[in-house]
Amino acid sequence: MSKADAKAQKRAKFEAVFPVLRDELLAHFAAEGMPEDAKKWYTKNLDYNVPGGKLNRGLSVVDTVEILKGRTLTEDEYFKAALLGWCVELLQAFFLVSDDMMDQSVTRRGQPCYYRLDSVNYIAINDSFMLEMAIYHLIKTHFRSESYYVNLLELFHEITYKTEMGQLIDLITAPEDHVDLSKFSLEKHKLIVIYKTAFYSFYLPVALAMYMCGIQHGPAPSSDPYELARSILIPLGEYFQVQDDFLDFAGTPEQIGKIGTDIIDNKCSWCVNTALAQATPAQRAVLDANYGRKDAAAEARIKALYEEIGVRKLYEEYEEAAYKRIMGLIETIPAQPTAKQGEVVLQRAVFKSFLDKIYKRQK
Amino acid sequence: MSKADAKAQKRAKFEAVFPVLRDELLAHFAAEGMPEDAKKWYTKNLDYNVPGGKLNRGLSVVDTVEILKGRTLTEDEYFKAALLGWCVELLQAFFLVSDDMMDQSVTRRGQPCYYRLDSVNYIAINDSFMLEMAIYHLIKTHFRSESYYVNLLELFHEITYKTEMGQLIDLITAPEDHVDLSKFSLEKHKLIVIYKTAFYSFYLPVALAMYMCGIQHGPAPSSDPYELARSILIPLGEYFQVQDDFLDFAGTPEQIGKIGTDIIDNKCSWCVNTALAQATPAQRAVLDANYGRKDAAAEARIKALYEEIGVRKLYEEYEEAAYKRIMGLIETIPAQPTAKQGEVVLQRAVFKSFLDKIYKRQK
Repeated sequence: MSKADAKAQKRAKFEAVFPVLRDELLAHFAAEGMPEDAKKWYTKNLDYNVPGGKLNRGLSVVDTVEILKGRTLTEDEYFKAALLGWCVELLQAFFLVSDDMMDQSVTRRGQPCYYRLDSVNYIAINDSFMLEMAIYHLIKTHFRSESYYVNLLELFHEITYKTEMGQLIDLITAPEDHVDLSKFSLEKHKLIVIYKTAFYSFYLPVALAMYMCGIQHGPAPSSDPYELARSILIPLGEYFQVQDDFLDFAGTPEQIGKIGTDIIDNKCSWCVNTALAQATPAQRAVLDANYGRKDAAAEARIKALYEEIGVRKLYEEYEEAAYKRIMGLIETIPAQPTAKQGEVVLQRAVFKSFLDKIYKRQK
Repeated sequence: MSKADAKAQKRAKFEAVFPVLRDELLAHFAAEGMPEDAKKWYTKNLDYNVPGGKLNRGLSVVDTVEILKGRTLTEDEYFKAALLGWCVELLQAFFLVSDDMMDQSVTRRGQPCYYRLDSVNYIAINDSFMLEMAIYHLIKTHFRSESYYVNLLELFHEITYKTEMGQLIDLITAPEDHVDLSKFSLEKHKLIVIYKTAFYSFYLPVALAMYMCGIQHGPAPSSDPYELARSILIPLGEYFQVQDDFLDFAGTPEQIGKIGTDIIDNKCSWCVNTALAQATPAQRAVLDANYGRKDAAAEARIKALYEEIGVRKLYEEYEEAAYKRIMGLIETIPAQPTAKQGEVVLQRAVFKSFLDKIYKRQK
């Protein structure tokens, strides 16, 4: 089987779990006495918003459990890992439905944003809440008797809160309709990226897998495997988002599957922050006059300036440095960790698997 | 001290806890590295949306703990009860900020709805999320070592989810811009009221107080004190909301502190459902033609019809029957419950205190 076939098969197996969870949520909803039209509504909410993405976050829970256990999962183990993966996807759906409203976005995953559907509109706010609460219902049903149950709850709370903090600073730093580049900086960009994206996309799936494998917290932060994982996954997530920002500028629509709009949308992107850090006063004036305008000529002027400043070259340098730095962090983990019989411990392979998927990606 | 003075003092003591909790949330926010402008934003979010209501729900946590323990609380006990009370108020703030957006409401508590503030707008969605997550941060900080910690988390999850279910059926049953009275019924009204209001306003505060007092779950639903409390508090909450609906029609602005708009707003109110249940075909035609119209003459026509049908009289009958039924439920609790030394058990007084506050209220 080719690598692409194996990947497609993995994805299909994971996708097959979604209807099971959805039907469980709907059965509970009906058992609460909710009427048929409401059940149809909730079905649509779940089906429209939860599957259909790249599923990288959800799949990485399953992948990480497999790497940590070092063997094929039993059916029950697979189902539980996939359930936690789908909880990450539910969390993401909660964020995306609401972010699209806040940003007044038009399309998502090649279809109209959910809130733009005729009958939906503002009801999307409450629908996004229900996606969030579905997480806790599923975890309660399937993990209540596990010793790490409360850790799962606290983890989702903490990461949800952090992501909302990141969304807040992003919203007040880069409102679509009011350009003020003095609020931007590479430091601010880093903070937004870490809080808004890295925690829920990279740390959350791995920490969930670690809990599921019975990995215990250390007595102090310096000996806590969760702190160790975080110290690698947050820089990794930051690197991932810088790539995303760069590809929005430099990737072709064939590569990235969409047309980049970060410049027009006044996004606090790595590219504009890098340009700001390098700009002469004259170049800064060009940035101030053209960034975030709903105008193709202004966008072209910014893109030309990026080329002039050498953003491509700076990105290549960033990528090499990030790769080396993250590899260095990974190598602080012993190559042959000592583990007691039957004990699961953190391994380099968990992080290498992420880094390999990301390094020099073009899409 | 007069009864009114004692009530004002109680309220002032409870209100004094809010700044402590707010500052704790802000200190944590700052410790996460959030910038100053974001901290100012979060401060405004908390101050604008959380205090300033009637605080009945929050205060009832404190009242219930006092009744259950049968004595004045220590300083630490008071603080913890008040903290849980403020968590109910945070949950309510989360709902109200988002409900006001979904309903496109104009004012709340005598000031513009939060989302209508100039700078806020759609950011109110994320701000409402942060009010919700503040609950879990506070509970984790102050209750993590308690044996009932996980019960508190599950309770908030369950009640939040149920309230969102209630909000969904309300939104699809009574959209402001599309009148269809065939979707209404007293049965549907009951379902909406129980899920959207009764669980979080009545059951949640009492269940929180019960956990704090160490009351254990029974081995079976029939012997579970939480089930018993629920079986009384849900009808109580239903009765409370029927009053609210009736006062929206029959209360003077001096009594209820606002002008009732349920008829104009196409609300699935007890009044319209009672009228629908009694209406002749001719009266039904009047209801269909005039309910939910943005038009004072249509509203007056509905009010006249309510008088014609005798909604006032039907309400009086409802109130007497509800009072008797709830008193009957309360009296299933032994007047002198047996308790082991130091054990706190559920008492009639908890529920009588609620019922006394509500019975024949005019505001």
